[in-house]
Amino acid sequence: MEIKSCIRTVVDYPEAGVRFRDITPLLKHPSAFRLCIDRLYQRYQNTELDVIATLDARGFLFGSALAYLLGVPLIPIRKQNKLPGETVSLEYKLEYGTNCIEMHADSIEKNERVILIDDLIATGGTAQAAIELLNKIGGDVVECAVVIELVELGGRSKISPVPLHSLVTFTEDEI
Amino acid sequence: MEIKSCIRTVVDYPEAGVRFRDITPLLKHPSAFRLCIDRLYQRYQNTELDVIATLDARGFLFGSALAYLLGVPLIPIRKQNKLPGETVSLEYKLEYGTNCIEMHADSIEKNERVILIDDLIATGGTAQAAIELLNKIGGDVVECAVVIELVELGGRSKISPVPLHSLVTFTEDEI
Repeated sequence: MEIKSCIRTVVDYPEAGVRFRDITPLLKHPSAFRLCIDRLYQRYQNTELDVIATLDARGFLFGSALAYLLGVPLIPIRKQNKLPGETVSLEYKLEYGTNCIEMHADSIEKNERVILIDDLIATGGTAQAAIELLNKIGGDVVECAVVIELVELGGRSKISPVPLHSLVTFTEDEI
Repeated sequence: MEIKSCIRTVVDYPEAGVRFRDITPLLKHPSAFRLCIDRLYQRYQNTELDVIATLDARGFLFGSALAYLLGVPLIPIRKQNKLPGETVSLEYKLEYGTNCIEMHADSIEKNERVILIDDLIATGGTAQAAIELLNKIGGDVVECAVVIELVELGGRSKISPVPLHSLVTFTEDEI
């Protein structure tokens, strides 16, 4: 509950009718932020695991501290044209238009076991694309973990059969 | 030296004549990444300090783990139109065109002591803008710390009188 109480809901952002779940108060509250990271660490400390992959940009805020604690490689999945080496990329559909994510082609070795970290899952489009990209270069995505799951938007089923682990959930009508 | 040897130089990226210093091999190398974070932690663990501010997006990769260890609030300074609350913003000049960074107006209290974290300092334009933004809302920037300093580009003098702490330095001619 301490984690959830530190997430601020901003109504009508970024557009009318949307309830935006804002993690900045959580980042500002050291014991709540610590609790997030520690709960992820406890979940994965005994998992056979090769890599933490994390999504640009807010995912970095959680993936970094987790990879530090676990002592495993940290792989950033970035927006387009941010990585200087040879990349693999994937374009995916948004409600309007498309988005593109990229990884370095040499980020992971074949059959490495990956945990994917992001701050939030909504429809799951980005997580699904990230999983597809990780699979494309030979990774085995063991689980996707997020701080916030917006349950009615269906991200959990979208990324199936990869399991989703979320620290807190919100339903659409929660203030 | 372990840190520096994990930074890859990519020539002619993002444009001809530029040597891009790529941190992704460092992130992928757990003991080198750990050394970065531990050295920052050791530097600031006994500093009187209220906030870690960190720059979107690569700064997040270092600021997050550091704030976790220090147990202090983590404040993201973001690109434009990413923050849902009331923001303060600052537009600053790039070589061609302008850039804009934003923070939540309630990120810090007056006279709070801030350490600013980014991955790299080049000309110092972004760091200087971040310092100005932090000052604007009452923060006292005690130091700016980066993993990589490109010494000939003058970032250190640009942000003066705020001191710069860098973990490794590169001169322009280094491969």
